[in-house]
Parts: sequence; structure tokens; C-alpha cells
Amino acid sequence: MGHRDHGIDRREAAGLGPREARERFRAGLSVPTSGFSRGYTQANLIIVPKEQAFDVLLFAQRNPKSCPVLGVLDAGETSGPLLAGGDIRTDVPAYTVYENGVRVAEPADITGYWREDLVTFIVGCSFTFETALMDGGIAMAHLEQGVNVPMYRTSIRSAPAGSMSGPMVVSMRPIPASRVADAVRITSRYPAVHGAPVHVGNPAEIGIEDLARPDFGDAVEIPEGHLPVFWACGVTPQAAVMESRPALAIGHAPGHMLITDARDSEYQVP
Amino acid sequence: MGHRDHGIDRREAAGLGPREARERFRAGLSVPTSGFSRGYTQANLIIVPKEQAFDVLLFAQRNPKSCPVLGVLDAGETSGPLLAGGDIRTDVPAYTVYENGVRVAEPADITGYWREDLVTFIVGCSFTFETALMDGGIAMAHLEQGVNVPMYRTSIRSAPAGSMSGPMVVSMRPIPASRVADAVRITSRYPAVHGAPVHVGNPAEIGIEDLARPDFGDAVEIPEGHLPVFWACGVTPQAAVMESRPALAIGHAPGHMLITDARDSEYQVP
Repeated sequence: MGHRDHGIDRREAAGLGPREARERFRAGLSVPTSGFSRGYTQANLIIVPKEQAFDVLLFAQRNPKSCPVLGVLDAGETSGPLLAGGDIRTDVPAYTVYENGVRVAEPADITGYWREDLVTFIVGCSFTFETALMDGGIAMAHLEQGVNVPMYRTSIRSAPAGSMSGPMVVSMRPIPASRVADAVRITSRYPAVHGAPVHVGNPAEIGIEDLARPDFGDAVEIPEGHLPVFWACGVTPQAAVMESRPALAIGHAPGHMLITDARDSEYQVP
Repeated sequence: MGHRDHGIDRREAAGLGPREARERFRAGLSVPTSGFSRGYTQANLIIVPKEQAFDVLLFAQRNPKSCPVLGVLDAGETSGPLLAGGDIRTDVPAYTVYENGVRVAEPADITGYWREDLVTFIVGCSFTFETALMDGGIAMAHLEQGVNVPMYRTSIRSAPAGSMSGPMVVSMRPIPASRVADAVRITSRYPAVHGAPVHVGNPAEIGIEDLARPDFGDAVEIPEGHLPVFWACGVTPQAAVMESRPALAIGHAPGHMLITDARDSEYQVP
């Protein structure tokens, strides 16, 4: 929690192209990616052995708000059109490795964990629509406060799929009461990156006890006159992994996303 | 080709609830379903053994225009929330059975083919947005002419996924030149049932040699002043099955859809 030293200033981060950003992460930069590569789509990862892959893809199909799949790398593939010239094992700022549902490491690269049977799911991230919100004059508190976005497990259950079940995880952004409708309208246009909020206001109604203690990321202060607004989050598959305990699964570290070559506008609906 | 004896008149078919319609099909009615159960979502089927299921679901993820998945029944399941109280083996007017990619039967029920390892994919169908088009004053030529909608293989290749590859299949509806923009606008609002057209006008540009000889369904006459407009079609997975030759796959018979309990409005975007 608290202000982080990003080793890169906010303006520079916003101006990096996706390939440049991935190169920085490959070279060792390990920071949350909110605000990076303005206009480019950010993504969550969930990587599992082929034998788990159908359950994960079906889980995503049944939970499109939290798990909008942007792309899938076949077993053993480490690159693809969303990260041209990149390497999924090194190009994300930080990863989380789970064995039997327990987080065993948070490495900066996963080359040592790689296996030829691993299938990578690239899942839309709400950092993508933050550009559109800011263009609409709605400030992002976590960026203003220099911290990672706060994320929470909720009492909302995901639809199960085979071996995969767990709670929906949400991200939270404080929004001025007068702009909640605009935030809904703007983010509705991006269903592939979680779309409209799943909840506005009282966190207790979705099982969040204390906004000051997020399950992932950092707490943010809620300014006077703002409501907490909650969006489905691509950490949801990791919450399912923790509950469903497959032998191996790898995700991004929450808030530390893959920056793809896709433009936000590609995922915008009318 | 030509006018069919539906054993049911158009007005009665439009007024049937989805459960009633499924009961009629279960009892033996075997007709194309365009115009049935006005306001309810119609769906394509692709049913494969569990070992093929990941490839089919990934194929759908990579080809969302032609294969928008509305629901998946787990291995051996024969019912689900999209067909409450129904049975996927009997409630569709006609099926197509493929062995090694070859069509071997077009039965009215598939109880005799059923296996506990079969996974059913329920895929959105463009018959769904026909209601919205007609509400917009755009007539459906195949309904006026009393035939099944015409469908064609194209020269557009689907994105492959594992063992699955093949051409995109499209449905065609003649639209008055002055209403093409409206047809695009209206159908764009239904991405889960194929959404906007993939092509307008000259069929040769997408590899269709003769509109009068569709690959599936029936030919329709194109009235004076109309353009042929082409939408991605949920027969596309069957075209992939024909090319990829899995040991067993079952689809609906083209134009003979599952009528689901979901209302069209559930799949409408702003």
C-alpha cells in the first residue's frame, strides 16, 4: 500500500507503445500497469495445463463479465498476434504461480515454470476503459494517489464450469455521484474489458467488509461526494484456481498486466 | 426447394412459446424454424465428444461472428436453463449426424446416437434478429416465399483452432437498397446472434458462385431493387466438422433450430 516508486513517470508510461512497454517489463521493470500505453488494451492472464484448458475456457464463457477472453495461445505457444514479437513468459511485469491452489511465487518471469502443455488465456482488463473514463473527465483515484487499483473478493459466485468454481473478484474506483451514470454509459461500450459495473455503492451488499483492506492491489481513499463503483475483474479465474486447486496455474500479478498490441477502439461497441 | 408444407401456419408458429414449440418438435414436427416463437432466441447446435470439446469452444472463441456461444451443456447433460424441462436429443426439429466428417443421417431425434461423453454447444442464430428486422419494416424474403433461409459456404476462412478449420458459412437475406443501412444498424445490436452483416452485395467476392444454388437451405428470389446481404451463420462449425473429420459430431439440420427460453432482448446491446 501507499505511493509506489514506479521507476518511470506517469507521462512516460502513458506514452510507451505496447512493444516498448513489454520490452521494459522484460528488462526487469515490475510495476502496476494502470496508466501505461494509453489507448492500448491491457489484459489479465491465466495459464493452465492443456488438461485444464476446457474447464478454464468454459468458465470464461459462462462468466463473460469477469472473464472476457481476448485471445488464447495454443499449448506451448509463447507469442501471438496480441503481443507480436513478444514472449508471454517474460513480458508481463509480474506473475503469480499457484500449486494446488496455493500461491507459491510471484516471479518477474516464468521461464523456469514453462512447460510445452501450458495454454495461455488472455483476458480483458478494466485498465483499458480507464482511458475512456479519463477522456470523459472522470479522474482515476488510484492513479491520482499513485497506487495499484483495489480489488476484492465478493459474495457473488461465479458460474462453475467443470473443476472451476469460485467468487467473482471486482475492482473498485471511486466516482463522483454526479458522474456515476456517465461512468456506466462509457464503460458499457467496452464489454470485452468487463463492460458496465456490477455494483454501485454499499460494499457490504456484495460481501466486502472493509474497503480499506482489499484482497489484491492497494486501498484508495474515497473522496467526499464519491461512491465506490465496482467492476468485474480478470483476477476472478485466479480466485477460482485458489478454490479449485489444480496442480499448476499461473496468472499475472494483480494490477501487473499484459499490454497488448490491440487498440482500445477495437473492443468498443456502438 | 419450393414452398413447404409446415403442418402449422405462420401465425400459429409465431405465437408458440418456446416450450410449446419444443414439444411440437419432440412430437414429430420437423420444419424450418424461421418465424417461430416470435421474440425468443433461436440457436444452432454442435455436439461433440468431450475430447473434441476444447477445440470446438476455442474455435467458437476465435470466430465470434459465426459461433457466438450462448450456452454449453456439460458432458452427458441433455437439458439446461436455455431449454428448461427440455431434452436436447429430441427437441430440435431435425439433426445432422456426421461420422468422420461425412453426413450419415438427418434424424428427427438423436436418442440412438447419444453418449455420456457428448458436450453440447448452443450457438446463437440469426433467426433471432429477424423479429427486430421485421419490426423495422424490413420483410424477410424466405418467409414471404415460404422456404428455408439460403446458406452458402464462402471463401472466407474461419480462424482455425486445434483440429477445427473450415470456411465461414453465411445466411443471405435480400434487403431493399434503401434499407441496407437500417438492416446493418438493427442487426449490429445483436452480436450474440451474429450481429452485423459480413458482406453486402456481390456474392462472387466471397466465393459464392450462384445464389440460386445454396449449400444449405433453399434459394430465394431477389426482388427488384434489393441487394443480397450476408450474415455469418452458425452452420460454420458443421463446415469445420466436414473438413476436420472428427469421428463423431452432431449438429442441428440447417434452418431447423433449437428454440430457447431466452428472450431476444437479453442479447441486445445498446
